Amino acid sequence: MKGFTINQLEIGQSASFAKTITETDVYMFAGISGDLNPAHVNEEYAKNTMFGGRIVHGMLAASLISSVLAMQLPGPGTIYLKQDLKFLAPVRFNDTITATCTIKEKIEAKGFVVIDCVVTNQDGKQVISGEALVMPPK
Amino acid sequence: MKGFTINQLEIGQSASFAKTITETDVYMFAGISGDLNPAHVNEEYAKNTMFGGRIVHGMLAASLISSVLAMQLPGPGTIYLKQDLKFLAPVRFNDTITATCTIKEKIEAKGFVVIDCVVTNQDGKQVISGEALVMPPK
Amino acid sequence: MKGFTINQLEIGQSASFAKTITETDVYMFAGISGDLNPAHVNEEYAKNTMFGGRIVHGMLAASLISSVLAMQLPGPGTIYLKQDLKFLAPVRFNDTITATCTIKEKIEAKGFVVIDCVVTNQDGKQVISGEALVMPPK
Amino acid sequence: MKGFTINQLEIGQSASFAKTITETDVYMFAGISGDLNPAHVNEEYAKNTMFGGRIVHGMLAASLISSVLAMQLPGPGTIYLKQDLKFLAPVRFNDTITATCTIKEKIEAKGFVVIDCVVTNQDGKQVISGEALVMPPK
Repeated sequence: MKGFTINQLEIGQSASFAKTITETDVYMFAGISGDLNPAHVNEEYAKNTMFGGRIVHGMLAASLISSVLAMQLPGPGTIYLKQDLKFLAPVRFNDTITATCTIKEKIEAKGFVVIDCVVTNQDGKQVISGEALVMPPK
Repeated sequence: MKGFTINQLEIGQSASFAKTITETDVYMFAGISGDLNPAHVNEEYAKNTMFGGRIVHGMLAASLISSVLAMQLPGPGTIYLKQDLKFLAPVRFNDTITATCTIKEKIEAKGFVVIDCVVTNQDGKQVISGEALVMPPK
Repeated sequence: MKGFTINQLEIGQSASFAKTITETDVYMFAGISGDLNPAHVNEEYAKNTMFGGRIVHGMLAASLISSVLAMQLPGPGTIYLKQDLKFLAPVRFNDTITATCTIKEKIEAKGFVVIDCVVTNQDGKQVISGEALVMPPK
Repeated sequence: MKGFTINQLEIGQSASFAKTITETDVYMFAGISGDLNPAHVNEEYAKNTMFGGRIVHGMLAASLISSVLAMQLPGPGTIYLKQDLKFLAPVRFNDTITATCTIKEKIEAKGFVVIDCVVTNQDGKQVISGEALVMPPK
């Protein structure tokens, strides 16, 4: 239960996690976050928006990035310092999305690592891009 | 069911949402995100970390920001473009956290709004700070 | 899987269902109903109210009545027509409440039955009282 | 975090909350309430009933009324005293229902307010009607 230390990590090393995001995920996330925006929980409203139906919360889709960082790269023991996110395209109910994290830079003096993060859907389209700053376990 | 347009928003206008984050929230979020890091779901592991016990996922705490943006300010119809997050301090089980969003800048030419975001705990300590870029409803 | 018909029901016949209502129940109910009122999900707010802490949604406690009617008396096949509810006292997290339903009147001409409903807590205190009108299965 | 006082409320003032009720909502509500009636969770049974399929618990649909009262009108600080409900038509999985609450009468001497409550589906059909008695915040 210990992730990679900064010395064990290499630039370009990557890991990913994929999941089909269901109505159940969205409805439970709505209750947890308090975000019951009609775009997420009201199909009658959502079908008349530019998205044509209910969409997944951006922060729910982004949470798969945190899963990769915490579970795989660097993994357990990692301290999450920063996360920048760009929401590029909607995620729809039942889309299968893949979060991929890639080591971009090691800031040896501080023991920090910069990680490139992308979330793509089943068509290969980027739905989120971003960058994380983490402190891997010692 | 329509939020504030860019013209209705004023610099300094703010809104907030508060919730006591429970074990239930953390465990459901773990299942949704796939982030079953021992820091969140393994008390035996967590009691020996620097935090002394299980802590809340940073992205779960950050999701209250999305609730404020989507439900209140600007509210329904808002398009979420970017979110930057700094994780400043741990959120523990049963902490009551408040996400507060404040209009910082209006980019009239693009129809975008920059929003300052902070999440504080019951002791007034900042646990997350960040900035969102959104497009309010027309 | 068929409940009692009107002929099989007797005045005074009763059934009950009891459950310890947990934080998990309340938090899931908040998401389902959209009722994230601070009295239910914000301990810092709730400890300063007359109740001294978070309380259970009244409609969650009342839903145990519907469980008795649908599962036991009259049981499967029952059509739920009316429910009157008086909320008499707060239900706190971890209270064990018992919903008891008792046949009060048979309206033979219409095939309807009036049912007396009470919900009590572990101290025997009534927290909800009310009356249901149902049509038992034929 | 404080709702309208009795003086701030006006006869005819109204608020509403809408949500598409999903299988997830029904299944979680079944577990919370203990109402696992086959009409709600057994499609093989339900397809042979007069409803032709599984239907939503009446009390789940009614819980959206409590969301409007607690979150919007009168809002936080409201004490829920009574709720009368008539179940007029079934709510089916994936129906989008809207709970609308309208101030009907102010009982100034007692500090109580009578509120008219209706729940309609996406076709505008009333599925629940009722009346609430509440004490708005001071």
